[in-house]
Amino acid sequence: MNIATKPAALTVTQGPLPASRKIHKPGVLHPDIRVPMREIALHPTSGEQPVTVYDSSGAYTADDAEIRIEDGLPRLRRNWIVDRGDVETYEGRVVRPEDNGFVSGDRLTPTFPFQHAPLKATGGRAVTQLAYARAGIITPEMEFVAIRENLGRDAARAKVRDGESFGAHIPDHVTPEFVRQEIASGRAILPANINHPESEPMIIGRNFLVKINANIGNSAVTSSMAEEVEKMVWATRWGADTVMDLSTGRNIHNIREWIIRNSPVPIGTVPLYQALEKVNGIAEDLTWEVYRDTLIEQAEQGVDYFTIHAGVRLHYIPLTVDRVTGIVSRGGSIMAKWCLHHHRESFLYEHFEEICDICRAYDVSFSLGDGLRPGSIADANDAAQFAELETLGELTKIAWAKDCQVMIEGPGHVPMHKIKENMDKQLAVCGEAPFYTLGPLTTDIAPGYDHITSGIGAAMIGWFGTAMLCYVTPKEHLGLPDRNDVKVGVITYKIAAHAADLAKGHPAAQVRDDALSRARFEFRWEDQFNLSLDPETARNFHDETLPKEAHKVAHFCSMCGPKFCSMRISHDIRAEAQKEGLEAMAAKYREGGDLYMPVEGAAGAAE
Amino acid sequence: MNIATKPAALTVTQGPLPASRKIHKPGVLHPDIRVPMREIALHPTSGEQPVTVYDSSGAYTADDAEIRIEDGLPRLRRNWIVDRGDVETYEGRVVRPEDNGFVSGDRLTPTFPFQHAPLKATGGRAVTQLAYARAGIITPEMEFVAIRENLGRDAARAKVRDGESFGAHIPDHVTPEFVRQEIASGRAILPANINHPESEPMIIGRNFLVKINANIGNSAVTSSMAEEVEKMVWATRWGADTVMDLSTGRNIHNIREWIIRNSPVPIGTVPLYQALEKVNGIAEDLTWEVYRDTLIEQAEQGVDYFTIHAGVRLHYIPLTVDRVTGIVSRGGSIMAKWCLHHHRESFLYEHFEEICDICRAYDVSFSLGDGLRPGSIADANDAAQFAELETLGELTKIAWAKDCQVMIEGPGHVPMHKIKENMDKQLAVCGEAPFYTLGPLTTDIAPGYDHITSGIGAAMIGWFGTAMLCYVTPKEHLGLPDRNDVKVGVITYKIAAHAADLAKGHPAAQVRDDALSRARFEFRWEDQFNLSLDPETARNFHDETLPKEAHKVAHFCSMCGPKFCSMRISHDIRAEAQKEGLEAMAAKYREGGDLYMPVEGAAGAAE
Repeated sequence: MNIATKPAALTVTQGPLPASRKIHKPGVLHPDIRVPMREIALHPTSGEQPVTVYDSSGAYTADDAEIRIEDGLPRLRRNWIVDRGDVETYEGRVVRPEDNGFVSGDRLTPTFPFQHAPLKATGGRAVTQLAYARAGIITPEMEFVAIRENLGRDAARAKVRDGESFGAHIPDHVTPEFVRQEIASGRAILPANINHPESEPMIIGRNFLVKINANIGNSAVTSSMAEEVEKMVWATRWGADTVMDLSTGRNIHNIREWIIRNSPVPIGTVPLYQALEKVNGIAEDLTWEVYRDTLIEQAEQGVDYFTIHAGVRLHYIPLTVDRVTGIVSRGGSIMAKWCLHHHRESFLYEHFEEICDICRAYDVSFSLGDGLRPGSIADANDAAQFAELETLGELTKIAWAKDCQVMIEGPGHVPMHKIKENMDKQLAVCGEAPFYTLGPLTTDIAPGYDHITSGIGAAMIGWFGTAMLCYVTPKEHLGLPDRNDVKVGVITYKIAAHAADLAKGHPAAQVRDDALSRARFEFRWEDQFNLSLDPETARNFHDETLPKEAHKVAHFCSMCGPKFCSMRISHDIRAEAQKEGLEAMAAKYREGGDLYMPVEGAAGAAE
Repeated sequence: MNIATKPAALTVTQGPLPASRKIHKPGVLHPDIRVPMREIALHPTSGEQPVTVYDSSGAYTADDAEIRIEDGLPRLRRNWIVDRGDVETYEGRVVRPEDNGFVSGDRLTPTFPFQHAPLKATGGRAVTQLAYARAGIITPEMEFVAIRENLGRDAARAKVRDGESFGAHIPDHVTPEFVRQEIASGRAILPANINHPESEPMIIGRNFLVKINANIGNSAVTSSMAEEVEKMVWATRWGADTVMDLSTGRNIHNIREWIIRNSPVPIGTVPLYQALEKVNGIAEDLTWEVYRDTLIEQAEQGVDYFTIHAGVRLHYIPLTVDRVTGIVSRGGSIMAKWCLHHHRESFLYEHFEEICDICRAYDVSFSLGDGLRPGSIADANDAAQFAELETLGELTKIAWAKDCQVMIEGPGHVPMHKIKENMDKQLAVCGEAPFYTLGPLTTDIAPGYDHITSGIGAAMIGWFGTAMLCYVTPKEHLGLPDRNDVKVGVITYKIAAHAADLAKGHPAAQVRDDALSRARFEFRWEDQFNLSLDPETARNFHDETLPKEAHKVAHFCSMCGPKFCSMRISHDIRAEAQKEGLEAMAAKYREGGDLYMPVEGAAGAAE
């Protein structure tokens, strides 16, 4: 690779993608906002404007970026947050040894150098984007995402709308007011913890571009802090819209701090994992108090959304006993064990309103976890799964009543014919709150290729209306993803999300396909590489067969060689068509077009 | 890899896949037939029977195989063919210099050592499986595929049928008579040239398992004969059901002979490619006579199906002029150029009945080519594409009248929302002849990952009814696939085909998923690897994180580590459920289940 990458030191991958530069569009309502986009320049011979694409990668891909991860990213949203006048700084919770798994000395990951006092809402207020939206306020965050979703387009394209949206209503042009309405209705969330001012606002909802999430995280078995920050940067470089830190090992608190301070995208977590670390991994020893403490700890750090498995209720657990793969969600199984051991209802369910009170004070969005999702084709769409979904619908209403933003997690392992039922039921039961699914995997028989088994399901459920797709890497079920696995997972899910946008009929989704296809047809190889989701891989694959620079302008490729090239012949045809007035000539044939072999004579006549 | 592979010499990859052995099931109507299957042994602790899977790999994966590619495979079907009493040997066409691109001396690929006199039908008879089926004859080939499709199952499983078949009718148990009926109706083909007696019969039709094809072939730019034979063996090892030899360079005739003599699967070609080589690559110089000569040459060698682009009619060419990517099919563009240059109707279209007369004499099946398939999202489902499809429907009827077997090729590049229209139209227009599609690719923006962009579309169109899926490798659009690309392409398409079988509700498709999922849930790591489509990759990925042999029996994996493992916790729950009578206990909770937070007291009471 041609990019600087030294994961051993405190540096991360930097620099623009090929032929790309970061541009910024200003706001109108909020003139100080600068919305980043990536502009891909095309070869002068194309006679085409640059192609503007969505850019989730933050400052790391700017030309002039001077990144020091010890400094963290600029605190972009700080003033927007403070200017609303509804938050206050306070001393915050003191970091305790259990927050980092009781490690000390050399084994303790260094603390992030700058500590800011956390913010929280004053006087029990809700400082959520939902609360503002309901109050009719268009925040800078909302205008930011409106501009971002339009990719710099000023108005609807002339192009005829195409696609099947299954009830989604994607406007020709996204206005700030449309964003506000979508958030107010609960159909979209804008995850933006007031303590993560470094994040660049983005929106998750089925009337917007389909988003993807990448998971990172150390575990008890392997991985370190420098690697995790780099994984976050790396995942967003290739297009991850949010990143979940699923760390379960030691140093969780300190590693998360490094990640959040350097993350341009919203960070999600499963607070239960850290809570469990605090009780030495004994599920039965979990308490509401430990869990609550963890929520506050993470909310103060700036986690943007929490996965909360509050739908795993005690009386649902028997429904999983005859499953082929039982409970496969970590959070779900931990809560099931706790419920069972104590013979009690889940403390997450019982204390859900108090959880909402915490989240609304920091604007932490909910990602209501599907702890009972199916872990195999055999268990798809079963009673346990759908019982939990009903409860997630119930919890959604409670969260909304508290002005909290909510999305709903979905499966899992689902064969193709059962995917749409998931989407339909989720929309019906959860009041159109955004759906956020893991895949789903459409077969169980290909460990090592589960980015593909799940990419199929992800594209389909994205088309049907899922707002964000959680990636699956090739290592799923087998091991922890390395750098390349993260990239392959992200690219696969960008494909799924984009295929879904195309099929939904997003008004601008096809712009990039068309630009790349024109480049392909005109043998602009460099443009074809640069417009692709992974320019490096495209170029490397090409060069394996035809390495010479001269071949980058060759009017053929290695598949057919110069003589057979169908694209080249197609050009000849087009040239000839213009020369000969093909339409006029062909009209003669149309008369006899329905007959079989009518044309020996006619052909002669035409010559 | 742990398998013997020396592509430089005349040896090919051999040996069984892990934990696998080849078994054979005998026929009843034809007791001498031996239908190969692969049996995957499970660990004794599972208490489960071996899992039987479809096996397209031929003798190469037998335990005791002694393969010498200079000998070719045993001529399995020779007696079946001769015993029908409707064929005769004859001297056959003499190989000419142009058949191998005029190369000589050292540059000429050696002739295959054994030359058999070709067979053809006596007295203008049709010796096609379609002709026999219509005559009420159940051939050994038909019984072979019936047994093969059942995978050794004796009867319908007790399992409730599940799935959405979109009008396909997959029986619980495939009988030889069912196979005969499907072939007789034209809904399925059994490609089996009488001069390719080495092939193991297989069937292509939407009421059978979804099949996949892998393309191989040298080109003017690169590749050699030893590589091509190995590619064929390699592709079938991982599951390719047929192989197309798309060679376009020199030595085409001799390389093809080596491939066919060693191929256990049907071989398809595009005869136009070789015909064009014979006229030095000048499309305008093509003639019916050169083409006809090529058909006979290849039919005598044993090619099982021909792609014929007879639907590219002169008056359709103007319909492509305003496309973003014109004509992207090699065959289509060659014929378009010919038609345009001569201002004449396609000689393939005009001589189609004569082509049928050749094919029926050898039982070469048609794969009616979609020369006007879309090469970009922008061109999907356009007038040119569907005009050609209408003509393919017309040609189907002509071929059927000649007792020729027919399948129809389909696109290409199609966004998800336009895929089903392709299938529906094909079924309607082509009288339910099997559909055979390339992908389709669901977006254009990911060169380097087009196995994935197309795997999404392939799974969907397979579900909707496509009988065979033509693979796309990661190198599509960029270069020629190497060994690893072929494998990745095949595995991706096995995933798509299997996902389609599951969604269609194939009565036995889920057996393998369930066996693998049970292995996963019970931490039988070795079984999980062995049951997967690619045991080597699954094992390697696992070992990257947890290499020790002891971890192969560990009740956790590297994702969560020992403490968090959801599968392990699920086992604990199951154990506890049995101990405690969980159902009874949980029943108490159901009464209050619809209330929010009703259970503080109830939970206490239950303790």
